[in-house]
Amino acid sequence: MRTRPLKVALLGCGVVGSEVARIMTTHADDLTARIGAPVELAGVAVRRPSKVRAGIDPALVTTDATALVKRGDIDVVVEVIGGIEPARTLITTAFEHGASVVSANKALLAQDGAALHAAAEEHGRDLYYEAAVAGAIPLIRPLRESLAGDKINRVMGIVNGTTNFILDKMDSTGAGYQEALDEATALGYAEADPTADVEAFDAAAKAAILAGIAFHTRVRLDDVYREGMTEVTAADFASAKGMGCTIKLLALCERAADGGSVTARVHPAMIPLTHPLASVRGAYNAVFVESDAAGQLMFYGPGAGGSPTASAVLGDLVAVCRNKLGGATGPGESAYTQLPVSPMGDVVTRYHISLDVADKPGVLAQVATVFAEHGVSIDTVRQSGKDGEASLVVVTHRASDASLAGTVEALRGLDTVRGVSSIMRVEGE
Amino acid sequence: MRTRPLKVALLGCGVVGSEVARIMTTHADDLTARIGAPVELAGVAVRRPSKVRAGIDPALVTTDATALVKRGDIDVVVEVIGGIEPARTLITTAFEHGASVVSANKALLAQDGAALHAAAEEHGRDLYYEAAVAGAIPLIRPLRESLAGDKINRVMGIVNGTTNFILDKMDSTGAGYQEALDEATALGYAEADPTADVEAFDAAAKAAILAGIAFHTRVRLDDVYREGMTEVTAADFASAKGMGCTIKLLALCERAADGGSVTARVHPAMIPLTHPLASVRGAYNAVFVESDAAGQLMFYGPGAGGSPTASAVLGDLVAVCRNKLGGATGPGESAYTQLPVSPMGDVVTRYHISLDVADKPGVLAQVATVFAEHGVSIDTVRQSGKDGEASLVVVTHRASDASLAGTVEALRGLDTVRGVSSIMRVEGE
Repeated sequence: MRTRPLKVALLGCGVVGSEVARIMTTHADDLTARIGAPVELAGVAVRRPSKVRAGIDPALVTTDATALVKRGDIDVVVEVIGGIEPARTLITTAFEHGASVVSANKALLAQDGAALHAAAEEHGRDLYYEAAVAGAIPLIRPLRESLAGDKINRVMGIVNGTTNFILDKMDSTGAGYQEALDEATALGYAEADPTADVEAFDAAAKAAILAGIAFHTRVRLDDVYREGMTEVTAADFASAKGMGCTIKLLALCERAADGGSVTARVHPAMIPLTHPLASVRGAYNAVFVESDAAGQLMFYGPGAGGSPTASAVLGDLVAVCRNKLGGATGPGESAYTQLPVSPMGDVVTRYHISLDVADKPGVLAQVATVFAEHGVSIDTVRQSGKDGEASLVVVTHRASDASLAGTVEALRGLDTVRGVSSIMRVEGE
Repeated sequence: MRTRPLKVALLGCGVVGSEVARIMTTHADDLTARIGAPVELAGVAVRRPSKVRAGIDPALVTTDATALVKRGDIDVVVEVIGGIEPARTLITTAFEHGASVVSANKALLAQDGAALHAAAEEHGRDLYYEAAVAGAIPLIRPLRESLAGDKINRVMGIVNGTTNFILDKMDSTGAGYQEALDEATALGYAEADPTADVEAFDAAAKAAILAGIAFHTRVRLDDVYREGMTEVTAADFASAKGMGCTIKLLALCERAADGGSVTARVHPAMIPLTHPLASVRGAYNAVFVESDAAGQLMFYGPGAGGSPTASAVLGDLVAVCRNKLGGATGPGESAYTQLPVSPMGDVVTRYHISLDVADKPGVLAQVATVFAEHGVSIDTVRQSGKDGEASLVVVTHRASDASLAGTVEALRGLDTVRGVSSIMRVEGE
C-alpha cells in the first residue's frame, strides 16, 4: 500500500462539507483500506473563515478557493458550495491543475454538464456527482454502470424531499398547501424561501441529469418541462382518493414509443396507491426505473441532509481516488445516442380534469364533443350537481399534452363551462 | 474507437445465457458505444449441442467448455452454468488464460469467493457477479462502490422470489404452505424440487455474499445460520396480523453493537406492515440497507428470471470490457476488517412465541419465571383459553438467541406447558 496520502481540497463547509470532513477523520482507517492509500484533507475553502468548524484544523481553512484548487498538489476537489459560479470556474480550474472532482451540484450539472464533462475528459480527470441526485441513494452509478447493458425506457422519481413531505402531509391530514408548507418550514424541511423546491426547479435539475444518463443523450435544465406544486389543493387529494390514487411531484424521463426522442418533465401527478412510489412517505426520495431487460426497479432512501449527501460524496471520493491510484478514469459522459428532447406537447399520458359547468341538459354532450374533436378519448366521466351548479370530472385515456391543451382551451370557450378547476396528469399505470 | 472486437465466451445457454446472447446481438450498437469497442460472441459452451438455440450461430456452439476458456483470445468469460464444478475450474482456468469473468453463480461465490478473488487478483483479471444476488437489482455495485465511504451496519433483504411468492400468497389468501407452494409450482415460480428455495439454501448463499461485501470481511455459506420456511403456518400469519405484522423470509447481515463481529442468518420473521420490506409482493426482491451516514436505503426489483438476470450480467460485461480496454481492473475483494462471524446464539432480536398450556391458575407466573431466569424480558403476553386448554402468546424484548433457546428448552420441561407451537423472530423495528 502507498503511504503518501492523496490530497483532498474541500470547497464549502456547510451542512454537507462539514459531514464530509468529519467522516474523513472518523473513518480514516476504513477509507485508507478501501482506497489503498491514505486520504488527507489538504485545504477547506469557505466564505466566512471566522466561523468555528468543529474538528477542522483552522490552518487548513482559507477564503481563497481559487488558490487552493491551483496549488497543483491536490488530487481530488470536493465541490459542495452549489450554484453556478464560482463553482463552475473552480471545477474547470481544478481539472487544469491536476485534480479530479466530486460534486454535489445539481444546478451546475443540469446547466453545464456537457462542458464540464468535456473539460474533465480533455485533462484526463474524473467528474463524479452521485450526490447531485437523490442524496444518499445510489442512483447515478447504478444507472450508468449496472444498467449499462440494458435499455432504459423510463425513469419516474420522487426526487425532492421537501415537496414530498408537504404532499404527504396534505394526503394524510387533509391539510391545504399553505398549512402543510408552514409545518415543513417549522420542522426545517422547507427553507425560508421554498421557491426552488415548491416550484420544482430543484427537481427539474435532477430530471435533466437523470434523463441524460438514462438515455445517453444531452438533456439540459431548459429542456425540462416544469410545473410546481403550489396549486395542488385538498380537493385534488379528495379526487385522487376517489380514483384510488395519491398525488406526488414526479420527475418523469421517458423514451418516446418510436425510440427516436426523449422527454423530461416535472409536475404533480396522480399515481395509483398500488404503485411503489405511492408509499414513499415524508421527506424520503425514490426513483422507479423501467428497462427492457431488468424490468421494474426502485431505489429508495433519504434524498437530502448532511450525512446522507456526505455518504454519496465519500463513495465517489473512494472511486475517484482508486482511479487515480490505478492511473485510470471512470466512465465519462455518454451522449452517443444524440436523441432530441421533444417538447411537452408530445408527451402522451392520461389526465384527470375537473370542470364547473351549468347544470342543464346537453352540457355533457357538448363537453364530450370537444374532447372528441381534439382526439382525446374519455375513459370515465362523473357528473354531480345541485342548485343550478354542477361539476364534471373527466378521466381520459392516453393522449398527447398538446391535444389535451387544445381540448382545455376549447372547453374554456364554451358558455356552459364556468371554469376548469383542475387538470392533473395520471401516471404510473 | 477500437474496431477489433472484444471476445466473449458464454458458458451455459439456458434461460439466462440465451438472453445474454440475444441482447448482445440486438443491442450490439449500444454495447459498442458504451464500451468503446465492439463485443463479439466468440463461443458458447453447452451440455446438449443438439438443442436448437434461436439466434445463435451453430458454429459457435461447443461442448468443450475447457477448450473454449483455454483458447487464449477470449477477453471475458460469462459463466451462467451455476453449481460448484465444473464452474469453479472453468473460472480459474479462464483467469489463467487471459480472461476476466462475469458470473451469476451465487453458490460458488458463497462457498469459494475468497479463492476466486485471489485467483483473479493473481492474474490481474476482474471477477464481477452482480447477477448472483437479487437478479437485476443493482446491489453489489452500490454496496461496494456507492457506499464505499460509509459504514454499513445492517443488510436485511428478501432475496428469494419463490419463497416471497409463497409467503405473499399465504398472507393475502389465508392459504396454507402446501397450497401456496402448489400454486407457485403451477405458475413456474417454484421448481419441481423446491428445496433450495424453501429450505433457504439459495437465500443463505446470497446472505454470505452480501455480508462479506457489506462488512469487508469473509463470510462463507457455512457461516450463515439457515432456517427454511416450510414450517410457517396460516396460524402464524394470523398471529402476525394481530401484531400489525406480516411474515417474510429474511436474509439478515448485521454488525454487532460493539462493532467487533458480524452475523449472517436467513429465516422467516415477522416484520411490521409499516416497514418498506412488508409491501414487497409476489416474486419481487428487495434489500434494505442501514448505514451510518446514508441512513436507510432500499433497492427493489425482480430477483430472478432470464431477462433481469441478463441485465445484471451485461452491466458487468460492459464494466469488465471497459476495464480491459483501459488496462485497469475494478475493485477486487475487500476483506480487510477480518471481522469474525459470530454464531447464531449471539444474535440479539425480539421473539414471538406461542405456547399451549394447561388452563389453570399459576401457569402464567410459572412461564414468566422461566423467561426471567434466562434473562429474557417480556414485552407483552396474551392469554386465551377454553375447556381446560389455553394458549399463551409471548412477545419479548430484545434478547440473545442463546437466551431464547434456553428459555424454550426450560419451558418445554414444565408440566403445565403442553407444547411450544411456534417461535418466530420479530425484525425491522
